[in-house]
Amino acid sequence: MKTCPFLSRTPVQSLRQLASGNGAAACPNASALMSKATACPVMGKALGVRQHHTTSANTQSSEATATVSVDPTTPSTPNAPMKSAMPVTGQTVFDYESQYAQELEKKHRDRSYRYFNNINRLAKEFPAAHTGDVSNRVTVWCSNDYLGQGRNPCVVGTMKQTLDRYGAGAGGTRNIAGNADLHLRLESELADLHHKEAALVFSSCYVANDATLSTLAAKLPGCVIFSDSLNHASMIQGIRHSRAPKVIFKHNDVADLEAKLQHYPVSTPKIIAFESVYSMSGTVGHIREICQLAKQYGAITFLDEVHAVGMYGPRGAGVAEHLDYEANLAAPHAGNGSVLDEIDIITGTLGKAYGVVGGYIAASASLVDMIRSYAPGFIFTTSLPPSVVAGSLASVQYLKLSSKERVMQQINTRLLKARLAELQIPVVPNPSHIVPVLVGDAELCKRASDSLLTDHEIYVQAINYPTVPRGEERLRITPTPGHTPDMTQKLVVALATLWKQYKFKYTQDWANEGGKAGVGVENAEAVKPLWTDHQLLSEIPNGIHQCHCETQNVSAPAGIPATA
Amino acid sequence: MKTCPFLSRTPVQSLRQLASGNGAAACPNASALMSKATACPVMGKALGVRQHHTTSANTQSSEATATVSVDPTTPSTPNAPMKSAMPVTGQTVFDYESQYAQELEKKHRDRSYRYFNNINRLAKEFPAAHTGDVSNRVTVWCSNDYLGQGRNPCVVGTMKQTLDRYGAGAGGTRNIAGNADLHLRLESELADLHHKEAALVFSSCYVANDATLSTLAAKLPGCVIFSDSLNHASMIQGIRHSRAPKVIFKHNDVADLEAKLQHYPVSTPKIIAFESVYSMSGTVGHIREICQLAKQYGAITFLDEVHAVGMYGPRGAGVAEHLDYEANLAAPHAGNGSVLDEIDIITGTLGKAYGVVGGYIAASASLVDMIRSYAPGFIFTTSLPPSVVAGSLASVQYLKLSSKERVMQQINTRLLKARLAELQIPVVPNPSHIVPVLVGDAELCKRASDSLLTDHEIYVQAINYPTVPRGEERLRITPTPGHTPDMTQKLVVALATLWKQYKFKYTQDWANEGGKAGVGVENAEAVKPLWTDHQLLSEIPNGIHQCHCETQNVSAPAGIPATA
Repeated sequence: MKTCPFLSRTPVQSLRQLASGNGAAACPNASALMSKATACPVMGKALGVRQHHTTSANTQSSEATATVSVDPTTPSTPNAPMKSAMPVTGQTVFDYESQYAQELEKKHRDRSYRYFNNINRLAKEFPAAHTGDVSNRVTVWCSNDYLGQGRNPCVVGTMKQTLDRYGAGAGGTRNIAGNADLHLRLESELADLHHKEAALVFSSCYVANDATLSTLAAKLPGCVIFSDSLNHASMIQGIRHSRAPKVIFKHNDVADLEAKLQHYPVSTPKIIAFESVYSMSGTVGHIREICQLAKQYGAITFLDEVHAVGMYGPRGAGVAEHLDYEANLAAPHAGNGSVLDEIDIITGTLGKAYGVVGGYIAASASLVDMIRSYAPGFIFTTSLPPSVVAGSLASVQYLKLSSKERVMQQINTRLLKARLAELQIPVVPNPSHIVPVLVGDAELCKRASDSLLTDHEIYVQAINYPTVPRGEERLRITPTPGHTPDMTQKLVVALATLWKQYKFKYTQDWANEGGKAGVGVENAEAVKPLWTDHQLLSEIPNGIHQCHCETQNVSAPAGIPATA
Repeated sequence: MKTCPFLSRTPVQSLRQLASGNGAAACPNASALMSKATACPVMGKALGVRQHHTTSANTQSSEATATVSVDPTTPSTPNAPMKSAMPVTGQTVFDYESQYAQELEKKHRDRSYRYFNNINRLAKEFPAAHTGDVSNRVTVWCSNDYLGQGRNPCVVGTMKQTLDRYGAGAGGTRNIAGNADLHLRLESELADLHHKEAALVFSSCYVANDATLSTLAAKLPGCVIFSDSLNHASMIQGIRHSRAPKVIFKHNDVADLEAKLQHYPVSTPKIIAFESVYSMSGTVGHIREICQLAKQYGAITFLDEVHAVGMYGPRGAGVAEHLDYEANLAAPHAGNGSVLDEIDIITGTLGKAYGVVGGYIAASASLVDMIRSYAPGFIFTTSLPPSVVAGSLASVQYLKLSSKERVMQQINTRLLKARLAELQIPVVPNPSHIVPVLVGDAELCKRASDSLLTDHEIYVQAINYPTVPRGEERLRITPTPGHTPDMTQKLVVALATLWKQYKFKYTQDWANEGGKAGVGVENAEAVKPLWTDHQLLSEIPNGIHQCHCETQNVSAPAGIPATA
């Protein structure tokens, strides 16, 4: 791409128009871009090779046809095993490439085909990033590095020192050469953070959720899983892979959950799987009520705190810790009677607020040991590199002691939500740090995202189906402590311009239609932020936290620009 | 563990004996270690809390019982949904913790419970590592960092520079803020390496295999998957998750595969899933013959080169590249008629010979785009950190140009295999770089591993069921370029000592029993190494390769100690 003068000079928008003949990015044969490409001295040659591939595939299929026997029987169900020991004559091999193209065409047709933006977040300039063009700067407003920990010198410094000491990779599974002291220390730290006996680290929280739910439910005889309707794909897959019966309850509807629990005997093993902060809506699970129901109906709770760890609670353990903020501040460890103690399994990530990568579960020692011993997704995979583990450990330890970053993040979120509310730009109401700006149309949402990037040097990815339901497409904005008031102002002006330019619906427009995704809903209860004014105000005087993580010596500010 | 004077001073062996009362590591209630622990001023308190947890769980269950209705009906199948809207009286909640303990007890009973060793590979001293005690050095002989790339200054230097430039984590999924130029460049490099149009990077190759097989087979109507009986767990899971019918063929038995293919019409979509180097046996898949069968019966091939990438072929693309070594050396790119071009899907890892972490697939552009667009395990997860991607890219580029490391690795493998053969210490015969030393008993295998660690300062993990079949337990040894002749000598002496000390079976003993896992099989064909004498000799004069990766400026030797 970089070496081609045509591609590097042509705006992305124009390239897409050229390519959009007929689902062209996936299947370029029919596009205007393709006709340009065949004329190119470099690409033309490459396309010739591709053509050749297609041809040889055809040759292949006729060769295959030529070798088959002359048995004239055609089985009634074409894909069922045949009684004859030889394949049937006259049948051609399945056309795999056409099938792939068809599946991609479906994505183009329903506008769910994804174009990845080339975004390179710069540690020294974050929230700035460069695009595919290294000299081009944009402000990132949709990263899940919520607190800018990815650029925290405490984290980065620890990782560099660990690279020097222990090298690049772990070199094995946890069982074979890949279990270092750092892994054990990180797991102890996470167990303590969540008031649990033990923790277990996985390649990602996707893997943690998938492996844990599928293994756990399969090990509980007759287990039934109760799953919030907005649960993340990783939980949905884990439940599916367990093959246990699943009962979906309405999002955050405790009454619906209870009604569904009542249909099963208390003696039936049950898992209630839900989240604390739901990624795309920013809504927050009813943790206390669900723990109460679990007790009452003999269920265990599986709480995904992926979007909350590092962000809520006095030590960053998540929403469950935040619900008893003062009690946990006074006595931060397990056994203080917090609702945190009541949850059976907490899953979290090291790749969002903690700024690195990886996932984990925290639970009772026996449960963790069982998952450790039986989950293929844990057992048969290379463990996380020492530097990743050390960086995560440093980040968790840092955010256990420092609240400044989460407080600044909340203040920036409040500021942005307030400004958008003034302008009637529709935000899905929620008590968390997510700012989901409703657009309500896949095409328009993508256009908004493209225009922000091209015309306003702002990067906010369009969130379309299947990540959100059709008609609820949105721009998901995530402020960080590093976003200055000036940046917020620019974002708000850009959104206001788009809303005018493209005639997007304002909050009142949605209200006139009866509301959508919580926006413009009549007589809706006002949403109170999880972080109260009192909590924010009491934390502000604590100042910027100094790095004190045990794994390294760097003492540096947390990475909040002086202007913030 | 470190803070406790008892635990840190007591040998691991003794601790295990204390703990082994009754599957105690998992369920410590009944062990001698437990009685010591309750007397400890720190642990005693913690155990009190644990006791308290158990108590409150009981309280919980009686609370639950107290709230249930008085409906006297007991459903005939206790876990089926009830018609009554309220749970049944008299039933207690399911005892989750007992269930976990039972599942762990099973592992203890059949000796498949895993104890992780604490191994910290030192970049500056590799293959040396320290154990839980930082001053204690052991030589690692079972890492999958086959070429020592994890300590290559080219890789480590690139990672450190990337940390400074782009920070610790990717901060999002590939679709949302986590798609950087580095990811795209790595994928281009991998596509070129494997003679494919495109590649896609995943969190790990476990995820790559699982996500790709499950998505692909589900997208091919009526697809049947043919799977080698020794395929890795990740493929088995991927196949299971696709819910497509699976036909297992005997390990490396092309005739059996063909017989099974013949039962299906050529028009049925079929995937043949197999490996190049099988991890635990070191045996090598019949790539050319299987590609031929695929053509003939209208199947596509899915080849896992996880244990071969970086290690075989003139550019390190794996066994498929190695099979046409000279042709690929002369003309390394796609379209040269190599069998590499014939394979439909190649999967590989960045976490073994490449020394970092992560996995990938390489295939046609449409196939890759379909997996990119549909596989939840790819879509809904944080992408790999920039430093991991850059380190992997540097490692792939480095090993594309340097053969010295793979050649040294092969020479060290040959040396070790020859020495063990002289001593009649049984090695599963294979043409690859894996040295599986057969012990044939779970208990003895673990004892051998423990004794190597404790008495000989050598770390080789015991490989027991379910990783290998019962009765085929082994010590899986993996030489690297960094293992000196002196280290090899020490290892051989240590093994000879163990074989004498514990009366392990020698090759002749296995032969007398009719052979096992390929050892002592009468009239067995001699196995020729994949790397021929000619290939090894022609590469040796090339000398140690200088770092030239484009991502950084470090020019440093490849990390082979001068003594090797």
